[in-house]
Amino acid sequence: MSLPVTLADIIAAAERIRPFVHETPVFTSATFDREVGGRVFFKAENLQKVGAFKARGATNAILQLPDDVPGVVTHSSGNHGQAVAYAASIRNLPAWVVMPRTAPTLKIDAVRSYGAEVVLCDHAERESAAAAVIDGTGAVLVHPFDDAAVIAGQGTATLELVEQVPNLDVIVAPIGGGGLLSGAATVCAAQESTIQVIGAEPFAVDDAYRSLQSGIRQPGVESPSTIADGLLTGIGARPFAILAALEAEVIRVSETAILEAALFFLHRMKLSVEPSGATPLAAIRAEPGRFRDQRVGVIISGGNTDFAWLGAAASLTSRPETSP
Amino acid sequence: MSLPVTLADIIAAAERIRPFVHETPVFTSATFDREVGGRVFFKAENLQKVGAFKARGATNAILQLPDDVPGVVTHSSGNHGQAVAYAASIRNLPAWVVMPRTAPTLKIDAVRSYGAEVVLCDHAERESAAAAVIDGTGAVLVHPFDDAAVIAGQGTATLELVEQVPNLDVIVAPIGGGGLLSGAATVCAAQESTIQVIGAEPFAVDDAYRSLQSGIRQPGVESPSTIADGLLTGIGARPFAILAALEAEVIRVSETAILEAALFFLHRMKLSVEPSGATPLAAIRAEPGRFRDQRVGVIISGGNTDFAWLGAAASLTSRPETSP
Repeated sequence: MSLPVTLADIIAAAERIRPFVHETPVFTSATFDREVGGRVFFKAENLQKVGAFKARGATNAILQLPDDVPGVVTHSSGNHGQAVAYAASIRNLPAWVVMPRTAPTLKIDAVRSYGAEVVLCDHAERESAAAAVIDGTGAVLVHPFDDAAVIAGQGTATLELVEQVPNLDVIVAPIGGGGLLSGAATVCAAQESTIQVIGAEPFAVDDAYRSLQSGIRQPGVESPSTIADGLLTGIGARPFAILAALEAEVIRVSETAILEAALFFLHRMKLSVEPSGATPLAAIRAEPGRFRDQRVGVIISGGNTDFAWLGAAASLTSRPETSP
Repeated sequence: MSLPVTLADIIAAAERIRPFVHETPVFTSATFDREVGGRVFFKAENLQKVGAFKARGATNAILQLPDDVPGVVTHSSGNHGQAVAYAASIRNLPAWVVMPRTAPTLKIDAVRSYGAEVVLCDHAERESAAAAVIDGTGAVLVHPFDDAAVIAGQGTATLELVEQVPNLDVIVAPIGGGGLLSGAATVCAAQESTIQVIGAEPFAVDDAYRSLQSGIRQPGVESPSTIADGLLTGIGARPFAILAALEAEVIRVSETAILEAALFFLHRMKLSVEPSGATPLAAIRAEPGRFRDQRVGVIISGGNTDFAWLGAAASLTSRPETSP
């Protein structure tokens, strides 16, 4: 079977986007290693341009558009919107980002800070609003995950990680639409010694879990609600095809576990990690013993958060502030 | 004139402590560089063992104690207490850390997590409480800053920075007791092309500023109060001697500027930085134009905070969450 993205696509993407993205560092925590009984390597994509891995996919897609493209458009209330705005600014392309009227001012300002135009609408109208921009301007849609160039771009995070940390046994990354995880699976399947790929998904939006269990892509949860707001979306067709073919797994995590994981990053590792980005740590904790003696790669997907969750999280648990 | 610490001491300290501390990464921010008009390199000692540069000095001092030392003691409500506890644990030495009864549970638990014994007392009794431990146990006092071995250890942060980032024009670091800054000054004065050293100090506790202005060491501020709780202490005799001889400067910063700087680290650079550690960024902002076209090194001193300041800080300003 031919999959939508190959390792060669990801290697080409890495070359293409290299001048415009950071090679993010990898951190370890002696405390967490003791807890797990293994070695865990955290790739800090929260320190990536726009504060999330999304810069990789959007940049890879937008750099490949023809010279005469009149602009780009996407609908996203989150990191992909910023990523498209950032990547368009590299090429001095006009960008339109459709966002819900309810999006936080901070997020709207962030998109505007890259020079993009924000189109506010009701959540239900976002696809039609994007279509209207396309009709009116000829802009090209950059999908947040269901796009081969975007997936190849996201895969570069894993490509870097396996170069930075040899001999990983498993990689854990968040799954929402599946762009990051399907890129990871593509890289991992092509390694000499195969690396298992595991998605971390909130119980509250577990369509990826159910899709991979059943072998049939399930629709996204209706009216989804989770603190991991980057993972609200359902799994995309291309990501699902890749993840099913390459036998990725999903571990589901509770809202409390996500908050505790985000706190661990903040207090112990001194990193600002958004709740979505903290799900892999929660997933590793969810299966005690499973990662013993393993070399585990984790992709911290992003760090864009207003810390509204901090009060709730702090009341959950009281942990000493100690060393990474 | 002979100073208490030499470059050779710091080079020896770096060799000695290397197995026990992290070589911390250096980060940059395109956003901040644009604001400053220069290039700023942030050395992230918040990612150091115990979450602060203090691990360096305590480790250097404690590794040099004779084999038959019965233990170590210090009085510190902050990062030095954790650092002494950590460094003592390397040698399996008993450690006593005198802390005020009012210290946050988190900080007390952190010290205990390294196996040290916490001795609670009233703030005014801390020196006598430490003296009582010494009398009773024979433990050796590890002073937080007024000690040549501690200063040499703290200097290793700057030694690493000048190796990681060549051709710096200036280094800015927080000043409380002066251990970190006097170590920095010792390294910088010995470079082929001298690097200016600047301390960042809250207006509320500006004894280091007044000491270096007048050439006479001034007493610490009575009943000091600042959000930068790591900088409450007055400048020590040895650090003052070094900083005066090597012509260090101090820039004073307001409480609001400190909070805004800590927020910048959290929202833009995705780093948890304690208010004390954010003072250098505030100092750079305090003198607009001064750092234009300069290559500026900053030492982020630590990341241990309970974020109690976050609510107050968030109301000060609304900044978009964007890329580093």
